[in-house]
Amino acid sequence: MGTALARTWLAAGHPLTVWNRSPARAEALAAEGAQVADSVAAAVEANTLVVVCLLDDASVDQALGGADLTGKDLVNLITSTPAQARARAEWARARGARYLDGGMMAVPPMIGVPEAGGYVFYSGPRELFEQYRETLAVPLGTTYVGEDAGYAALYDVALLSAMYGMFAGTAHAFALIRKEDIDPATLAPLLTDYVVAMAPSARLTAEQLRSGDYTKGVVSSLAMQVAGTPTFLSTAEQQGVSTELLGPYFELMRRRLAEGSGEEDLTGVIDLLVR
Amino acid sequence: MGTALARTWLAAGHPLTVWNRSPARAEALAAEGAQVADSVAAAVEANTLVVVCLLDDASVDQALGGADLTGKDLVNLITSTPAQARARAEWARARGARYLDGGMMAVPPMIGVPEAGGYVFYSGPRELFEQYRETLAVPLGTTYVGEDAGYAALYDVALLSAMYGMFAGTAHAFALIRKEDIDPATLAPLLTDYVVAMAPSARLTAEQLRSGDYTKGVVSSLAMQVAGTPTFLSTAEQQGVSTELLGPYFELMRRRLAEGSGEEDLTGVIDLLVR
Repeated sequence: MGTALARTWLAAGHPLTVWNRSPARAEALAAEGAQVADSVAAAVEANTLVVVCLLDDASVDQALGGADLTGKDLVNLITSTPAQARARAEWARARGARYLDGGMMAVPPMIGVPEAGGYVFYSGPRELFEQYRETLAVPLGTTYVGEDAGYAALYDVALLSAMYGMFAGTAHAFALIRKEDIDPATLAPLLTDYVVAMAPSARLTAEQLRSGDYTKGVVSSLAMQVAGTPTFLSTAEQQGVSTELLGPYFELMRRRLAEGSGEEDLTGVIDLLVR
Repeated sequence: MGTALARTWLAAGHPLTVWNRSPARAEALAAEGAQVADSVAAAVEANTLVVVCLLDDASVDQALGGADLTGKDLVNLITSTPAQARARAEWARARGARYLDGGMMAVPPMIGVPEAGGYVFYSGPRELFEQYRETLAVPLGTTYVGEDAGYAALYDVALLSAMYGMFAGTAHAFALIRKEDIDPATLAPLLTDYVVAMAPSARLTAEQLRSGDYTKGVVSSLAMQVAGTPTFLSTAEQQGVSTELLGPYFELMRRRLAEGSGEEDLTGVIDLLVR
C-alpha cells in the first residue's frame, strides 16, 4: 500500500522522502526519485507533511515513538477504530503535530487509477484537510467527513460492515444452489443486478431515520416480510444450508414486529441493534 | 398483485377472465374489459392458460381443488419453496395440466413498468414457457431458469436472501452512526455506492466455485481479512452496537482460516454453510 501511494506522488512530481521497516522496499523507490531516509526520525524531519501507512495502530507507537513531531502535519492512513483514531489525534497534538485521520476505501490496485473509484475518508481539522487536499487527492479520491478525528474510521468501518453483510447474503445465495445442477456463473450476474437494484433503498432508510417515521414510503411492510421468512428458512433447510447468516436478521425483524410495528419498513431493526 | 397483472394484460388487449376471493376486486376489472367468473371452476374453464396469483401454496389447494384442470396450462406465481413448487408441478400433472412455476422479483408498482426492471423467474417445460413467453412478458420481464419446477423458487429465494444480507449489513452501518452527530442521509449514498461497487465481486466468487480454486484472483486474502475483523467488532462495541448481524459471518471466516485456507478468498465460507 505504502509503495503504491509513494509511486503516484513521485509520478506526479511531488518531492518525497520514504522510510520502510524493510529497507529494500524504500530503496526500490529511489530509482523513481524518492529520497530514502535511514531512520523514521530522518524521514519525519525531511518535510512538514508526514503520511503514515503502517500495519496497525500499535505500529505507529513503535515506528514514530522516537521521532520529533513538533510542527508536523500527520496524516494517518492505518486502519483503526474511531477510539484509536481519537486517541492518536490526542497523541499527535501532545507532540506538537496537527493530525488528520484517513480511512482507505481502496485496495492497492486502485491507487493512482481514478477510474477504479477508490477514495479515502478524512477527518480532523478542516483547514488542515483543505491545505493538503490537492496533494492527498493524487493517489486516491478524498472525502472529508468532519472535525472528529474518529469519523474517518467510523465511515470506513460502516461501509465495510455493509459490504460484509452483502457478502454474507450472497454466500447464502450461492450455498442454496451448491448441490443443484446450476452454474454459479448463471446466478452471479442475477445476484449482482438485484443487489445493485436494491442498494439505493438506503436513501429511504436514511429519510425514515431522520424523520423517526418508519412507515413513510413503505412498499413491503414488516408484517408482510416477516410472513415471508418461513419460505426462506424452509428453502435453506431443503437445500441443506445453515441459516446462521440469515437467521439473526429475521429474528430482529420478528422482535420488531412483536413490538407492534407491522406497518413499518425494516428500519426499526436498526434501533434494536443499538444498546 | 393480481389486479396489477390483470390490468396490464387488459391494457395490452389480451382477453381475460378473472376470479378473486373478494368479488369486488374482480368486478373492478370488468370496466377495463375483463370477464368476471363467479367461481374458480368457471374462470379455469374459460381459457387454456390459467395464471394463479394467490396468498400461498395452501391457498392453491383451497381455490383450485374443485376445478377441472384437464388440458390446462397452469402458471403459478405464488411465492413458494422449491419443494412446494415441485410438489405443485406433480399435483398439476396428476390433474392433466402442464405447469410452469414463477418467482416474482417485483412489487406491484413495478408491474407494467418495464423501466422499473421487475421480472419473473420461470421454470418448468421449456416449450411451455416458449409458447407463452410473449404473453407472460406483458406485465413483467421473464427469465427462464430451467426444466426443474423448483428452480424459479430457488432463484427467487437466493436473490432475496442476498438482499436481506445486504439489508443486515446496511442496518449495522446505520446503527454505528446512530448516536453520532452524523446525518444518515450523508451516509446513505456512500453505503449505496460502496455496495454497488462491491456487488460485481459475485462473478469472481462464481468463477472460484466453478474451478474449486478459491485462491484465484484474490485481492485481499482470508488471512488479511480475518486480521481486520477485531477493528469491526471493537468499533461496534465502542458505538454500542450489537454484533449479532456481523459476527456470524466473521465466525465462519475464522473457521475457514483455521482449516488452513489463509491464502484463499472468502468463498470457502459458502462450503461451511452447506451441510
